[in-house]
Amino acid sequence: MKEFIIERLTNLRKRMNEEKVDFYLIPTNDYHGSEYVGNYFKTREFISSFTGSAGFVIVSQEEAILWTDGRYFTQAENELKGTTIKLYKMGQPNVATINEYLRDSIDHKVIGFDGKCMSASFVNRLKKELNQLDFTIKADLDLVGDIWNDRPALSCTEAFILDDKYTGESINSKLRRLENKLKEEKADLHIISSLDDIAWLLNIRAEDVKCNPVLLSYFLYDHGNYILYCNKKALNKEVTKTLNDNGVLIKAYDEIYQDCKKLKGVVILDPSKVNYLLYQSLNDNRIIERMNITTEFKTIKNDVEIKNNYLAHLKDGVCVTKFIYWLKHNVGKIKMTEISCATYLENLRKEQENYKGLSFETISGYDYHGAIIHYDPTPETDIEVLPKSFLLVDSGAQYLEGTTDITRTISLGELSYEQKYHYTLVLKGHLQLGNAVFRKGTNGSALDMLARKPLWDQHLDYNHGTGHGVGQFLNVHEGPQRVGMGPNNYPFKKGMITSDEPGLYFVGKYGIRIENLMVCLDDCLNEYGEYLKFDFLTVAPYDKEAILPELLTFEEKEMLNKYNKRIYEELSPFLTKEEKVWLKDVTQEL
Amino acid sequence: MKEFIIERLTNLRKRMNEEKVDFYLIPTNDYHGSEYVGNYFKTREFISSFTGSAGFVIVSQEEAILWTDGRYFTQAENELKGTTIKLYKMGQPNVATINEYLRDSIDHKVIGFDGKCMSASFVNRLKKELNQLDFTIKADLDLVGDIWNDRPALSCTEAFILDDKYTGESINSKLRRLENKLKEEKADLHIISSLDDIAWLLNIRAEDVKCNPVLLSYFLYDHGNYILYCNKKALNKEVTKTLNDNGVLIKAYDEIYQDCKKLKGVVILDPSKVNYLLYQSLNDNRIIERMNITTEFKTIKNDVEIKNNYLAHLKDGVCVTKFIYWLKHNVGKIKMTEISCATYLENLRKEQENYKGLSFETISGYDYHGAIIHYDPTPETDIEVLPKSFLLVDSGAQYLEGTTDITRTISLGELSYEQKYHYTLVLKGHLQLGNAVFRKGTNGSALDMLARKPLWDQHLDYNHGTGHGVGQFLNVHEGPQRVGMGPNNYPFKKGMITSDEPGLYFVGKYGIRIENLMVCLDDCLNEYGEYLKFDFLTVAPYDKEAILPELLTFEEKEMLNKYNKRIYEELSPFLTKEEKVWLKDVTQEL
Repeated sequence: MKEFIIERLTNLRKRMNEEKVDFYLIPTNDYHGSEYVGNYFKTREFISSFTGSAGFVIVSQEEAILWTDGRYFTQAENELKGTTIKLYKMGQPNVATINEYLRDSIDHKVIGFDGKCMSASFVNRLKKELNQLDFTIKADLDLVGDIWNDRPALSCTEAFILDDKYTGESINSKLRRLENKLKEEKADLHIISSLDDIAWLLNIRAEDVKCNPVLLSYFLYDHGNYILYCNKKALNKEVTKTLNDNGVLIKAYDEIYQDCKKLKGVVILDPSKVNYLLYQSLNDNRIIERMNITTEFKTIKNDVEIKNNYLAHLKDGVCVTKFIYWLKHNVGKIKMTEISCATYLENLRKEQENYKGLSFETISGYDYHGAIIHYDPTPETDIEVLPKSFLLVDSGAQYLEGTTDITRTISLGELSYEQKYHYTLVLKGHLQLGNAVFRKGTNGSALDMLARKPLWDQHLDYNHGTGHGVGQFLNVHEGPQRVGMGPNNYPFKKGMITSDEPGLYFVGKYGIRIENLMVCLDDCLNEYGEYLKFDFLTVAPYDKEAILPELLTFEEKEMLNKYNKRIYEELSPFLTKEEKVWLKDVTQEL
Repeated sequence: MKEFIIERLTNLRKRMNEEKVDFYLIPTNDYHGSEYVGNYFKTREFISSFTGSAGFVIVSQEEAILWTDGRYFTQAENELKGTTIKLYKMGQPNVATINEYLRDSIDHKVIGFDGKCMSASFVNRLKKELNQLDFTIKADLDLVGDIWNDRPALSCTEAFILDDKYTGESINSKLRRLENKLKEEKADLHIISSLDDIAWLLNIRAEDVKCNPVLLSYFLYDHGNYILYCNKKALNKEVTKTLNDNGVLIKAYDEIYQDCKKLKGVVILDPSKVNYLLYQSLNDNRIIERMNITTEFKTIKNDVEIKNNYLAHLKDGVCVTKFIYWLKHNVGKIKMTEISCATYLENLRKEQENYKGLSFETISGYDYHGAIIHYDPTPETDIEVLPKSFLLVDSGAQYLEGTTDITRTISLGELSYEQKYHYTLVLKGHLQLGNAVFRKGTNGSALDMLARKPLWDQHLDYNHGTGHGVGQFLNVHEGPQRVGMGPNNYPFKKGMITSDEPGLYFVGKYGIRIENLMVCLDDCLNEYGEYLKFDFLTVAPYDKEAILPELLTFEEKEMLNKYNKRIYEELSPFLTKEEKVWLKDVTQEL
């Protein structure tokens, strides 16, 4: 039995009784809707002992339930043992969703949560979908915090200003663009609480979230005034001065909650980004709900950013290419494991100028581990890499010039026909998407079809998205665009950077994924309107030995030959003589 | 000068003054959001003299403006001459949208309209998007009706019950399915006001809207009671008895407005279908806004419906095939015009058993008229059809067994390489979509890509959707699914019938469109989930002389050969000896 969890649940239920709360909700979130949360925010892990990156707990006097998704079913089952917490497997048949569970439970009851850790859109949707029921919401209760004695402190790392030579646009210009847009929409107030939006707007970076170079903060526009709410200790004099010079007032992190209660006017905010407590404090104002203006601005990279990004990808591509060369020439000769391979690659990146860390935890999955989509090797799971099968490496780095994200699936010995067949199908989809020509207005559902069609035609598929937006020395996952199945209405635009990463996974056998980042560019303008296209930013070879050329169409061979020619030209100046000879061979024309 | 329009505007403005209304809005709509409106509802035409099928008028004391789309720019310019009404061309650069115009005009003003002719979602969106402004809405003013002395009467045609052998499901079963779903969602009340939904639910048909076999009516579910509101004269004794036997109470058409004010409970309704006046009268109840349950039911055709539909399409395909034969063998020998060709085809259809009229006005566009996407020949525009170029015929019929919609572009003489090239590109997209294999959950944006890709790769396109849902002896356009660019999130499901109609249009030269209807069927089920596919319902030959086989991939040739083989087998029993010989030739294997 995990006595400490049972004790924590008992303490929590005592507090629930005191507050007259029937159901207490514990999401995995910080105050800003960040993808990764700092230790301070790990309340769901504290109460359940489940360590996965996604999960949602509901506690009542009768039961406690954890919802998590398919990536974590096995892990959650193990970690929940002896906790009395039940596991609800999301997406499985006959498993109630969170809202279904609440619909059947909360009529005439009280639900409570920490409204700072719940997005306004989540709570608003809950209220709307369950509007046939009578229930009360108490949104200002951090009951897990109340019983967490040795809770870690909030992160506070030193912030710095990113030079205009990297951002291509001054703080002043960004603030003016924002203000103009707000005036156009007749808004007096605007609240931004997503950390990458604030980092972009103020050309500021820190290290408050793992792999995301951001600062814990809120931003408020109030009738022409700009206010940054953050731990003032994170800002040195120089940063403070730069912000002040640009008209940005600095206030304490928490002060925004009192300030918001006093605001008057028309407010623009994104309810999927702003937490419910902030949202609620603005309820007397007219609220225009829309995507953050900065999110729309940020996703369009300017010419300086794009130029820098090609540079970041060249540096990164040299590392990955050297890594593949090393791997193929040393496997079976020296001992390697998934972790030692990831470390070798990380060390190559560390040598690059303006390297600022990884953009996410490296996925290094050998053989059957390659079939686990979000596999992140730990000392317990780490296995030896041998001269056979595939090693799948999905990795990326932060450079001042940009953020990278690349996956290569590397053959380490003789492959079966089936392995080559699957590799080639994935490559077909990857090339078709990367070489797409499409009308302005095309969204990511349509583009997704190009990557999946070669697989669907064979009744194969992969259960993840095909592409995500990528920040500029910011979060490796950013919106609003994405390539994938399902609702997905944001059109692709010139200047967006997106990944192109189809795959195939055979549980217990092997996994294949091929990923490049690409930038969206103008193609042509004619009587039908504007046509757009992509250009690959990523430069690193695919695995020649895994390709069955007879499965490629004439057009696909041309796409591959063109890319191979380009990457040899760009990469070879940075390679040793031996590496060059090898790269020449693996990029030769089909 | 069109004095009568100026007089009507003067009268309207007088009424606006009396009612203290600053802006009066006149949409093109009936009380049910129908695609086509009866004469009683042509208020927009009455006030503006503009006869197009889509338009929106706003009148203030200072000005009157008509919004319409690209199909009608020229026509509207002509018809508005001398009326003082300005034309706002929708979608053109620097032309304010309706909401933008209102945003800049209505602060501290009063807007008025007939709330029965405005969907709740339109008004709710207006209120939400302009919530930074102060304005008053008066929604119960039919001011154009007030000044329209010789207004036509509401349509009232005789209704009949469609037999279960056509519907495949009894009225009782449909009502029970609906009630179960309502209980599942914990709703006490449900209002349906879209006419095809009511026709489907009660297996009832009439002719109250041109080409749509529907009855002017509302349907209310009230705590277990079913009520149909309609003109009782439309129902003969037998129909009334059948409805009563199924527990359906009949009330007068207008009575729903008083009844709604008295309703109590949780109500489900679709705000895009229910008019604003009805919606408003329910404001004290809890409203669950969602797509009509019947819309989700109706779009999934049952096995009986699908079997009937193949039959309807066989009858229809025989007509179209005989028409193409007649056309190709008589053009240049006897005099033909666009209208006479359409009439010839209509007469062939009239001979078919269970024919119930056209499903929409036939588009018969010869040569350069083929490039006008919604061309509907009138005696003034009708031109002679000669033994050269293309005739584009987009037509369809209503049969008791189903609704058809087919486009063939027929070559009538020697074609240029360019014409064949364009025909073949359209055919490639049409075949790719019709032969798609796709995961359950795929939406119409993704499928759209398949039809457009061969055109986009050449920087070509068509400015219309690729596919629309089709009713079962009901509206030729029905939701919720569609194939097209833009927001489009409803997934395709087994049993849906949808059109597949890419095209290419060269203004002043020629137009090409190829359209089949297709039904969505199961393909396979494996570890990735369910795969779906389409099967063409439409059986009629493409134009062999317009195809460049060298542009087709191996797979596309196989698709074409398979279809050709099938249609020869299915159609030939119903053809004359000469027609058979010809069909054999034009369907021979590539």
